[in-house]
Order: sequence, then C-alpha cells, then structure tokens
Amino acid sequence: MRIALDGMGGDNAPISNVKGAVDAINEYKNVEIIVTGDKETLENEFAKYNFDKSRLEIIHTTEVVRNEDKPVKAIRSKKDSSMVVALKLVKDGQADAIVSAGNTGALLAGGLFVVGRIKGIDRPCLCPTIPNINKGMTILADGGANADCKPRNLIEFAAMSNIYAKKVLDIENPRVALANVGAEEGKGNDLVKKSYEELKTLNLNFIGNVEARDVINDATDIIVCDGFTGNILLKSVEGVALSVMKLIKETLMSSTKSKIGALLIKDDMRKLKDFMDYSEYGGAPLLGVKGGVIKAHGSSDSKAIKNAIRQAIKFTEGNVVEDIKCFIDEYSKKEEEKANGDEE
Amino acid sequence: MRIALDGMGGDNAPISNVKGAVDAINEYKNVEIIVTGDKETLENEFAKYNFDKSRLEIIHTTEVVRNEDKPVKAIRSKKDSSMVVALKLVKDGQADAIVSAGNTGALLAGGLFVVGRIKGIDRPCLCPTIPNINKGMTILADGGANADCKPRNLIEFAAMSNIYAKKVLDIENPRVALANVGAEEGKGNDLVKKSYEELKTLNLNFIGNVEARDVINDATDIIVCDGFTGNILLKSVEGVALSVMKLIKETLMSSTKSKIGALLIKDDMRKLKDFMDYSEYGGAPLLGVKGGVIKAHGSSDSKAIKNAIRQAIKFTEGNVVEDIKCFIDEYSKKEEEKANGDEE
Repeated sequence: MRIALDGMGGDNAPISNVKGAVDAINEYKNVEIIVTGDKETLENEFAKYNFDKSRLEIIHTTEVVRNEDKPVKAIRSKKDSSMVVALKLVKDGQADAIVSAGNTGALLAGGLFVVGRIKGIDRPCLCPTIPNINKGMTILADGGANADCKPRNLIEFAAMSNIYAKKVLDIENPRVALANVGAEEGKGNDLVKKSYEELKTLNLNFIGNVEARDVINDATDIIVCDGFTGNILLKSVEGVALSVMKLIKETLMSSTKSKIGALLIKDDMRKLKDFMDYSEYGGAPLLGVKGGVIKAHGSSDSKAIKNAIRQAIKFTEGNVVEDIKCFIDEYSKKEEEKANGDEE
Repeated sequence: MRIALDGMGGDNAPISNVKGAVDAINEYKNVEIIVTGDKETLENEFAKYNFDKSRLEIIHTTEVVRNEDKPVKAIRSKKDSSMVVALKLVKDGQADAIVSAGNTGALLAGGLFVVGRIKGIDRPCLCPTIPNINKGMTILADGGANADCKPRNLIEFAAMSNIYAKKVLDIENPRVALANVGAEEGKGNDLVKKSYEELKTLNLNFIGNVEARDVINDATDIIVCDGFTGNILLKSVEGVALSVMKLIKETLMSSTKSKIGALLIKDDMRKLKDFMDYSEYGGAPLLGVKGGVIKAHGSSDSKAIKNAIRQAIKFTEGNVVEDIKCFIDEYSKKEEEKANGDEE
C-alpha cells in the first residue's frame, strides 16, 4: 500500500510532516510513503531519523499551495506544487490515498478536479469530527464542502459517512442523525424535512433529528447537514471550547488563591485539554472521490500527521471507495426505477 | 406604561414570575403590570411581598399553554390561557408589551396571529443573545423563528435588530455582520451572498461576514442569519459551554489534589459561571410585530423575569415598533421605485 503525503502543506511543514511520516513507517509495517516537496529540504529533515528508507520515496516539487491562495486557481496553476503532484499520484494509481495538511479549499478542489468524483455521486463531502464528552467523536457530514445542498446530497453524505464510520472508525452500527432545530419529525427547513423522509427508507441506523446542543453529548455517531450548517456547527464548537478554556486560564490567574489552586488541578486539567486535542483524531476524509483524500488539520503536529496516515491506510484497507461505488450504483438504480414507475 | 406578564409561563411559574413582577414594580416607578393566570394562586403569591398594589392588576385565566403543546394549535384553542390573554392585551392596546417565559413556539405564533405583523414586514424574527468573552453579548437575528429565508428576510432582520440594539441595549452604532463560513466577501451559500450585496446598500454599520467561531469573541454586535442557522449557532454555543463546565466539574472532583485546588479557585470560578448566566441578559424580543413581545428563558428565575420586564419597558420607551414601521415604509418605497425603474 502506498500513501502520498503533501510534504509542504500545513503550518508546521515540513518538520511535522517528515516526523509523522517516519513514525508511520516505523509503526505501520505494510505502508510505503511518497512525500512530495522540495527534495533537499525534505532529505535534510529525513536524515535526522532512523527508519526503513526502502519504504520512503521523495518526489521533488517546486511550488507550494499557500493558505491565502484561491483554491481552484491554485490547483489549476500550481501544477508542480507538492499538493497537486501528490493528488496526481492518487489519480494515476501510483498511490492509494493522499494526506495533506495544506489549504483545505484547494485540497477539496483537487479532490474533485484531479482525483475526480465517483460516478453517480453528485457532491463529495468533507467529514471532520467533533469531539464529544464521552471521549469519542461525532462525524460531521458535510463539514463545509457544499454550501448549498439538495436532499439527494444529504442522502449521499449519510451513506458515505456511514461506510467510512464502519470501515475506518470501527463503529459497528453507526447512529446517523440530521442536524436540526428540534428532535421531533417535521421540524426544520425544507431541505431537512425532505431529507428526513428519504433517510427513513435507507438501510441505515437512522435515529432522526439531533439538536446542535446534543452533538457534543454523544447523541449520534454521524451528524448529517449541508456544508454551510456543518461549518457553523463545527466552528461554534471549536470557538466556544477555545474561548472557555481561555476564560478558565484567565480566571485561574486572577487571584493568588486561584493561582495556588491552579497548581493543584494542573494534572487533571491536562486531561481536559486532551479532550480538545485535534492531533488525537487525525484528519477529515473527502468522501465521494476516486481515492483516499485525507485533510489533516492545518496546525497538525507529527502525531496528527501520523494519525492521518493511519486513517489513509484504514481507508484503503477498508475498500471505502468500492463500497461507496456499490452504494451509489444501487441507489441510482432504485431512483431510476422509481422515476420509471412514476411515469407509468 | 403597562406591561402584560404571562403569570403561568415558564419552568418556575408562577413563583418566579410573581417575585419578578414585584421587584419590577419596586424598581421601575413608571410601570404598571398586568399579570394573567389563576387568580387565587397569584394572589396568594403576591400576598407574600410588599409593593405598590395600585400598579398591579391580576386577570384571571383558566388555561395554561404547556411546553409540549403544538404552538399554533395552542394559540388557537387555548383562548383563555395566561399567554393568549396577555397577548390580546397587547393587541387591544391595553398593554404596551408582553413578557412570557412559556412555550417559545406558541409565543411566536401568538405574536404573529394575535398581536400581528407590522405592515410590510415579511417575517418577524426572534432575537436571543449570545454572551461573549468581553462580558457583552451578541444579538442573534434570527435565532429560530424562520427556518427558510429569502434575502429580503435577512435585510429585515438586520434593520430591525439594529433598531433594537440602539434603543433597548444602548449600543450606539451596532456592528452588523452576516454569519458565514469565511470572512471574505463572496463566501457562503446563495442566501448569504445575495444578502451581502443588499446589506452593503443599507444605512447600517455593516462589517461583512463573521465566522461562527468569532461570535463568542465579540466580533460583532449583531449576527444576521436564517433561523435554522441561528438555532444551530445558539444551541452549539449553549451546548458546548454547558458541557465544558460539566467536564471541568468532573475534572476537579477526579483526585484529592484537584478537590483541594477546586476549593481555592471556587470564588473566581463563580465569576466564570456568571458569564453563562442567562438571567443577566433578560429575554429575546420578537421583532416585526405590532407591540413588544419579549420571550424570557424557560428556566427564568425572578431576576430574569424582572430583567425581561425592564427590556419591555425600554422597548416601549424607545418606540421600537414605530422605528421599524418607518424603516419598512421607506425600504418598501425604495424597492418599489427600483422595480419600476427596472420596468422602464
């Protein structure tokens, strides 16, 4: 199995990327890693570590997609960037999956235009995870790839993330829910109401609607919504968690008594911080394209990169792409039959 | 000035409602309060306090709108409920505004069907507030009244909440922003993109897009969105804040060392809890109807009720309804002229 790693993408590239690749090579014995980026820089970094060099390949690239680049333009014009070259490896079958911590929009565009959509899938979706208070996580589908959606899109998101949850996250019978403004059937906007009807007919463990406030309380394994709503949900959770942690820190420093108290609770509070630690959770997959595309967090450290590589391995071993193809073939056939039936 | 108070609405009714009314009468010398509900129960409660009884009127009602009641049905069938009778007082001009901590959906329906929309306003909006880390608050418009919206609705929400922010919350030149998935112009779904164009032309301090993660960081005074998005945003913030507080509590109880630490930080942590204390902020106004309609939180204590009454007083003194009428008359005229211009 071969995983492509965008060596120059992310806030801590290439140092964390290289260290993450080395740790993955040492830990996962069946993987070969192809790293794209400036050859000299990468070689100097890799020289610092001991690992099986026969399982590493470096492909020299001369450009880097920056966070401030316009996504589609970057993918089209920066042909020799570490991201685009890594995406091409997947497209050409030289790699099974790509991991990148670079520009999210560009990776989405690259997934669509370079790797390509699975036939029948209308809109691929990005699936980040939201940590929950039970130390598990909830998959968000879609987390921001598609701002405007039709019910058909939400059906695809639900089915694809369900496959991913089973195959990559080892959740046996994932609970699938719609993000909504109330728990009862019949709540929500037009999109959600129509999607609800359709989701009931699918072969899924569909548990109905879940309110935004319960996502963090482990109310579901998968939360389905349009990408606009998904982004609002994800960013609110991130924003409030970070802000409350900051407020706590300020509170603990606000008096001498509290400062002493802070010393005593330090060890236990570290566990709380871990709860919000993105490196534990690896990256977000782009589901619905013809290969594994894993978006690691922009601020990924080496542990996050290694975990994203592990995800890419499980994604490949689990035949997620094949399963999605099977689902959409069957679903499209059923939809066609329904349409024909309506005509008669 | 006369304020109607739904005496039976809310988790802590009528005890908190009565105490809140008494405190309001004692504190705000220009207000008369009309409380609706079971006369005997209310009289027994009011008998516990000292206050100017000439400024209180009790209207006996025999029914109560429950949280589990279907909103529209409740308003139509429970004609002698404390909520509907209080709403009618506003409609008939016997009260300037109503405060209720009861069923939110029913109060919205009652605002529309009993009090009635201001002519020209397509959709009234509910405007709860989200606390921010600077100990201020951000007004959410719409916070959940309208799941599906057109750009015209968002324009109304922005203009109405701007008037409210100035007149009731004393914000001189409120910052108005769209909730969006990125800060740059051109981001977002169709609704947001079209609304952005229109908001630029209005006489508002429109600061563009704000991401969900920055709402809690005091990035804007007013955040404008459709009610579905608004509910997702509001409930995520509430959910995460509550869950993180719960996690902290658990963390502080997880070892003897932390338990001692917890005792030392207790006083300062209480301040942090205040940050999330809804009773400080009073209620959410329903803007766009022909009178003041203030929704107090379902779990309102007497302080929250008193603060909601204060809001109703400021709403009335500030002539918010008149200002909204002026805005929509002018806006409708401009829209008509534009339409005529297009035809020529």
